[in-house]
Amino acid sequence: MTTAHTSHSAIETDVVVIGAGAVGMFQVFQLGLQGLHSHVIDALPHLGGQCAQLYPDKPIYDIPGIKACSGAELVERLREQMAPFAPTLHLGQQVQTLAQDEEGNWLLSTSTGTQLRAKAVVIAAGVGSFVPKTLKVDGIETLVGTSVHYHPATLAALPLQGQHVLVHGGDELAVQAAIDALAHAPASVTLMHRRDVFAAPDALLAQLQAHRAADRIHVLVAQPQSLQAQGSALTGIEVMLADGSLHAVPAQQWLVYQGISPKLGPVADWGLELVKKQLPVDTGTFVTEAPGIYAVGDINIYPGKRKLLLCGFHEATLAGFSIAEYLTDKPVLLQYTTTSTRLHALLGVDHSTGK
Amino acid sequence: MTTAHTSHSAIETDVVVIGAGAVGMFQVFQLGLQGLHSHVIDALPHLGGQCAQLYPDKPIYDIPGIKACSGAELVERLREQMAPFAPTLHLGQQVQTLAQDEEGNWLLSTSTGTQLRAKAVVIAAGVGSFVPKTLKVDGIETLVGTSVHYHPATLAALPLQGQHVLVHGGDELAVQAAIDALAHAPASVTLMHRRDVFAAPDALLAQLQAHRAADRIHVLVAQPQSLQAQGSALTGIEVMLADGSLHAVPAQQWLVYQGISPKLGPVADWGLELVKKQLPVDTGTFVTEAPGIYAVGDINIYPGKRKLLLCGFHEATLAGFSIAEYLTDKPVLLQYTTTSTRLHALLGVDHSTGK
Repeated sequence: MTTAHTSHSAIETDVVVIGAGAVGMFQVFQLGLQGLHSHVIDALPHLGGQCAQLYPDKPIYDIPGIKACSGAELVERLREQMAPFAPTLHLGQQVQTLAQDEEGNWLLSTSTGTQLRAKAVVIAAGVGSFVPKTLKVDGIETLVGTSVHYHPATLAALPLQGQHVLVHGGDELAVQAAIDALAHAPASVTLMHRRDVFAAPDALLAQLQAHRAADRIHVLVAQPQSLQAQGSALTGIEVMLADGSLHAVPAQQWLVYQGISPKLGPVADWGLELVKKQLPVDTGTFVTEAPGIYAVGDINIYPGKRKLLLCGFHEATLAGFSIAEYLTDKPVLLQYTTTSTRLHALLGVDHSTGK
Repeated sequence: MTTAHTSHSAIETDVVVIGAGAVGMFQVFQLGLQGLHSHVIDALPHLGGQCAQLYPDKPIYDIPGIKACSGAELVERLREQMAPFAPTLHLGQQVQTLAQDEEGNWLLSTSTGTQLRAKAVVIAAGVGSFVPKTLKVDGIETLVGTSVHYHPATLAALPLQGQHVLVHGGDELAVQAAIDALAHAPASVTLMHRRDVFAAPDALLAQLQAHRAADRIHVLVAQPQSLQAQGSALTGIEVMLADGSLHAVPAQQWLVYQGISPKLGPVADWGLELVKKQLPVDTGTFVTEAPGIYAVGDINIYPGKRKLLLCGFHEATLAGFSIAEYLTDKPVLLQYTTTSTRLHALLGVDHSTGK
């Protein structure tokens, strides 16, 4: 962490939560019970982190009181639970820098230019940011954003008209992108994958088959070897076919769908002590070595640590109390959601008719 | 803790859980995931502890992933979740003694004579045992079990026939007991309470009113002052009316419903260090100062401790891992319920058809 100058355009807030996975979402809920509003940053364009990305349809059996639920269902349940506290979401962006200003506040800047100044930061970054896998082809880095696009969420903003479009991948997103590209009046659409097998719903595969039969989409079973470019404009790539032969393929827009995987990413550069790529914390407060910086969920480490969601929920709860005490410099007494009228007001539930 | 001699009639087991509240129930689940069978002891005749006893119909809002559920609903959810691990339940009895034998095993004996010998014990005793409030009347102790009965779960075993029955209390249980007593051919039934106001459902109050009108139940607004007995047989009590006057009332069977409240009880006598009536634990293992004795939930204390259910669930989870390592003397690796075929087999779920 380095001392940074305060930016006047930064959003001022009490707490920023880095990571909108299950534990980050429950952190928002617990901060809400403390009367604190959260800003939440996540690299993915949606809530849920690992639960949404790695096992949306797989059952989880060890959430207390929930015999079985899928990752997607858990995310939806947590979204409903935190809804009363209406966090401000900054999705589809990674925290790039984390630095302390002269007054001890924490300044964060993200990959899309968002700047926040917070008194406390909770790192709920799990196994890191979920970012698209990149290709290792000489010279590709300089083309990203102009001719090369990793997992574009929409094709609307891409200059596909009159261009040779190369969609690269074998999953549903790749097949859908190849079909969608046809609507942008391209010169050609090629769908490249290492095998002629695509993992997509039958209905989508039937559409792909129709476009192949009509020569609107060309399927290329190949792997990229090198690229040709003029300045920052891609002109074509050389690929290797299954038989080992090399061929030149015209390509001006390269849409890469090679999957999304977690990367620890910038967390490693924030100057915080890491042990086995995790942040050591105090088990009473879940504060890291830096005052005002907390770590909860899979990103933290302490004696006995187990990377389980239910442990992250506990950690987020104690961190919530600890942050409230840090911000007010006063002890925070425990109140119960069953009985506290203050918590009922925060949750927006009406108990005036009950006992 | 004192060294005890091994009883040959004791049940041999790996783990005993003291307390069948929400945290004790989740402890059974977590021990089950470790392949361990639990024996569970509780003073109440049913599962659920505080959730069932103190707020069965009040909503809880801070269980992760459950926006709102009543205490009773949470108990039912946890019962379903632990069901695959079929714990042996020893309900309606309190642990009276806890002592270590020569081999380091723990011997437990309960108020109903159950004896268990276990390698590990988890104290999930919450705020203590829920036991009926007792009356402070000279000489009453010697009549308990013969003429005086605190919160009998059923009237079937009581010798009410031909007797003057005094039911003592103002809640639903007391009203129901007075009505039920009529079926046992008593000489008389008196329902005594300090006010002529009873907290019971309207339908039950209507029944009571009908029995009063027909002189089958006599309501007495009074407080007990002293008792008369012959040996261990109650003959009558002296009561004070609202105007301060004293009256003698014939009474041979005294059914006392003065509520159930938690008492730390014998835990205080087991020789374990207590801090503010709680057991200090290590936050990595949740072991107490005594090897093999663990404490989870509201009964334990550590820096940052908050008496919340979700914290108890975390504590029970780490205690589960710790106990498995203690019993096998080997590190236990983390497995996930989403992916582990071993855990699926333990849970009895079939994933052969899934991905």
